[in-house]
Amino acid sequence: MELVEKMLAGEQGALARLITMVEREDPEVADIMKATHPRAGRAYCIGVTGPPGAGKSTVADKLTALIRAKGLTVGIIACDPTSPFSGGAVLGDRIRMQQHYLDSGVFIRSMATRGSMGGLPKVAQRIVKLLDAFGKDVILVETVGVGQTELDIMEAADTVVVVLVPEGGDAVQALKAGLLEIADILVVNKADREGAERFASELVAMLDLSSEKPNWQPPVLLTQAHTNTGIDKLYEAIEKHKKVLQETGQLLDRRRRRRRNELLHTVEEKLKARLEELVEKDGMLGTVVEEVEKGDRDPYSSAMEILKNKALINRWLSAIGEGN
Amino acid sequence: MELVEKMLAGEQGALARLITMVEREDPEVADIMKATHPRAGRAYCIGVTGPPGAGKSTVADKLTALIRAKGLTVGIIACDPTSPFSGGAVLGDRIRMQQHYLDSGVFIRSMATRGSMGGLPKVAQRIVKLLDAFGKDVILVETVGVGQTELDIMEAADTVVVVLVPEGGDAVQALKAGLLEIADILVVNKADREGAERFASELVAMLDLSSEKPNWQPPVLLTQAHTNTGIDKLYEAIEKHKKVLQETGQLLDRRRRRRRNELLHTVEEKLKARLEELVEKDGMLGTVVEEVEKGDRDPYSSAMEILKNKALINRWLSAIGEGN
Repeated sequence: MELVEKMLAGEQGALARLITMVEREDPEVADIMKATHPRAGRAYCIGVTGPPGAGKSTVADKLTALIRAKGLTVGIIACDPTSPFSGGAVLGDRIRMQQHYLDSGVFIRSMATRGSMGGLPKVAQRIVKLLDAFGKDVILVETVGVGQTELDIMEAADTVVVVLVPEGGDAVQALKAGLLEIADILVVNKADREGAERFASELVAMLDLSSEKPNWQPPVLLTQAHTNTGIDKLYEAIEKHKKVLQETGQLLDRRRRRRRNELLHTVEEKLKARLEELVEKDGMLGTVVEEVEKGDRDPYSSAMEILKNKALINRWLSAIGEGN
Repeated sequence: MELVEKMLAGEQGALARLITMVEREDPEVADIMKATHPRAGRAYCIGVTGPPGAGKSTVADKLTALIRAKGLTVGIIACDPTSPFSGGAVLGDRIRMQQHYLDSGVFIRSMATRGSMGGLPKVAQRIVKLLDAFGKDVILVETVGVGQTELDIMEAADTVVVVLVPEGGDAVQALKAGLLEIADILVVNKADREGAERFASELVAMLDLSSEKPNWQPPVLLTQAHTNTGIDKLYEAIEKHKKVLQETGQLLDRRRRRRRNELLHTVEEKLKARLEELVEKDGMLGTVVEEVEKGDRDPYSSAMEILKNKALINRWLSAIGEGN
């Protein structure tokens, strides 16, 4: 594909267009992913998540500046509707971000998260791969950690940084939202606020009890991102985590598992999309669905019957791959 | 099935055993759902959700007492790990709950939510149907609204009650967690606390802007559940919502859509479970998965190839329905 060749040659415009095709689930996605695959696998992916208002974007912003100062290139995927990266922030934040928009070593892409539930983690993962193949050294993925979808996106990350604030409620709340489980590094931002130290201690105590990461005890760091305080320590912690993952073979394991999940989830996703289509078009399936809707048949045993109907399954599968 | 007959004849023990079979995805689930189906469809299902600590369980507790006082029977499904219904609460709460445990007109079932991500909403929905077929007039489903799974469970409800507290953060936070979108009725509990009125006004303003429910503007009610204040008004609002749903035909529409989703999601769920199994057992699929894991092939185009492999698909489907 010409567009892929241009992208691999370093054209940002080609990269942006390929990302759009991936987002729209263009029929050519399989070809795009196949052609870019041999060039991917070098980048390190950092996930940044946490509740709204924790200052994730400022952390990501300062981290980007620090990584750039080390001479590395950065790709940013912002799935956070409140992030200045994705355009949803106050004017001050946006002006601050312009330094990165003007830097050709930084490529920023925002993704809409509202309304697009299921497929988003897979699409985000594919975009990470494109940025990787494009040659970015570090990829930052930013999400608001309030839903399962947003947590699932973090699957793409090698190191997950969870940003919390003291007034964001107690540590138990963060645990319940699933944030502590996925954190490789915890950041208590706005650490000048009251209760920051105590909150950090609570988190440490909680992690002592609950963390099950092999060879790694997630550290709890204090930052004040807006004054750039603690960002260097955060980057050191990320580097340290990366080293542990590399030395213990966990990085390879994580990536193997990720590729496996990507394969199986794509199969499931395609089957699902096609099933929805078929309900509209296939007479036999349409009839079953109608009877179930009316309440004349029960959904569960009808589902099992559909799965045993070979002719229907053949029709279901025959159109997958042609078109999409 | 003998067990189904016993359950339909009113034996609580038989109901409990059938629920366990549904939870464990027993091979007989299809038969159970088919046999109980003709008796279901009478019950009204109320969902109660909200962040941890909002007092959902106390609201559900008082609501149960009020519904019982009207001579109606109640089935409770507690998917909330902090709920006294599910055993995860302080001693005082549990003692308070005992009145319901000793009342044969109330059937309480708790479900573990930790660790069982994907399938939970479907299993909860099936249990709602069993309680319905058993003859319960009202079914209360309680979850902690922090994840997509918990929100998905609310799909089973005819009326969704979202319980918030003034100090639970601002209205924007509730909106972001997806709670305002699913609420048919909003409850500001612990209304004696500071800021309750202001918080309620914020919610009203937010709902004016964002709510899109046809023929229904979700009301915001103030309660102090522990002193039983406002629970009667809550019940009135539920009744009013039910009446609107019935008169506008929306209740039928909701239930039709629910049955349709139940059918399609069950098909997807079974295909998925079987795919995971097949990866272990099928040589051809195992090889593809291995190559993808190693990074020799890209996941996306490999997924498309799997979907075009008819022989593999036949092996995939042939075992569904036998056994599970």
